[in-house]
Amino acid sequence: MATPVKVHGPPLSTAVSRVLACLIEKDVQFQLIPVNMSKGEHKSPDFLKIQPFGQVPAFQDESTSLFESRAICRYVCQKYAEKGNKGLYGSNPLAKASIDQWLEAEGQSFNPPSSVLVFQLAFAPRMKIKQDQSLINQNHDKLAKALEVYEKRLGESRFLAGDEFSLADLSHLPNTHYLVNATDRGELFTSKKNVGRWWAEISSRDSWKKVVDMQKHSS
Amino acid sequence: MATPVKVHGPPLSTAVSRVLACLIEKDVQFQLIPVNMSKGEHKSPDFLKIQPFGQVPAFQDESTSLFESRAICRYVCQKYAEKGNKGLYGSNPLAKASIDQWLEAEGQSFNPPSSVLVFQLAFAPRMKIKQDQSLINQNHDKLAKALEVYEKRLGESRFLAGDEFSLADLSHLPNTHYLVNATDRGELFTSKKNVGRWWAEISSRDSWKKVVDMQKHSS
Repeated sequence: MATPVKVHGPPLSTAVSRVLACLIEKDVQFQLIPVNMSKGEHKSPDFLKIQPFGQVPAFQDESTSLFESRAICRYVCQKYAEKGNKGLYGSNPLAKASIDQWLEAEGQSFNPPSSVLVFQLAFAPRMKIKQDQSLINQNHDKLAKALEVYEKRLGESRFLAGDEFSLADLSHLPNTHYLVNATDRGELFTSKKNVGRWWAEISSRDSWKKVVDMQKHSS
Repeated sequence: MATPVKVHGPPLSTAVSRVLACLIEKDVQFQLIPVNMSKGEHKSPDFLKIQPFGQVPAFQDESTSLFESRAICRYVCQKYAEKGNKGLYGSNPLAKASIDQWLEAEGQSFNPPSSVLVFQLAFAPRMKIKQDQSLINQNHDKLAKALEVYEKRLGESRFLAGDEFSLADLSHLPNTHYLVNATDRGELFTSKKNVGRWWAEISSRDSWKKVVDMQKHSS
């Protein structure tokens, strides 16, 4: 049996949970290695050797170390092409290009406002950090604008990159999960016909339900 | 002879020039189609059909339309694998994973502060838009922090992803070019031993010099 790959970081992190969802879709065995961020373990010299920016996750597959969740997901899909969900990163160059396009849209247009809102609305109160209302409003508007484009796209296509669930959809799960379930901004998604239908479908996949379960059992 | 691919957008845009540098490296013929952004042509219904977010560039290769500069670069490298610089997106899965990792680092850690600084310091004055000093300071610090990681990396490795120039390096050219040549923040790069050496090397490639020349001859 192959050695399991290693994921360093807490499943509550959106970037860590992106990688976990991908590994479960691909049916790749993994070992989760805790990183206690409140104790600053992600800034320790040993951790910086595998993640020089001092962020989570870090990833190891035998002698290969990688960081950046979307790069790790691409690697997992290519290295383990024959395992699990074989269409996750497309099965031909054109499908792949469409997935890359929407994965970049997630990274560049969706993630920046979403992650600000998740931090400000879901995490800041728990961490007793003062919320920044103008930052919240500004990013709410940016996200609402991006989601108008999604609403149109998802009226033409079942998933973002085409007829099949792909890395592009998967990459939206972590932030959207918090926005819908841990903030008052869920309506941005659930009130929209196509985005709402898409969210219901992608969030009920077994892979994502397993990740949410891991989040519930972590601290 | 194959029909040239089409790039819609002005070469002065950092995202457009990223795609142009890639096409020139790959020796792929292209046609540049002007988009007059001051007249709002990027928000016109026809343009939104190929770039739903109303941003530049949009890209067309026969019947394929794509957006997001980094996704377009990945597509060009894969579709035209046998043309021009064959190592630009790696020649084996591990090299590719390293390129993806540093390309994501560019998109997630380098581009956000850089593009704020480029806008605030190079474009806002020309557009007679008031500069936001606290935004400038905040993003200066973020960029300086990211560049510390780059300095260390480039002390171990000639280029970001390894021994060869790749998409990961290329993707940094557009913002760094403006920061070094059109703002007072060039020292962030040029004062650092390894980052300075790397910048001198990547910015003197023929492909990038051609892009700068196109920028000079556009308005």
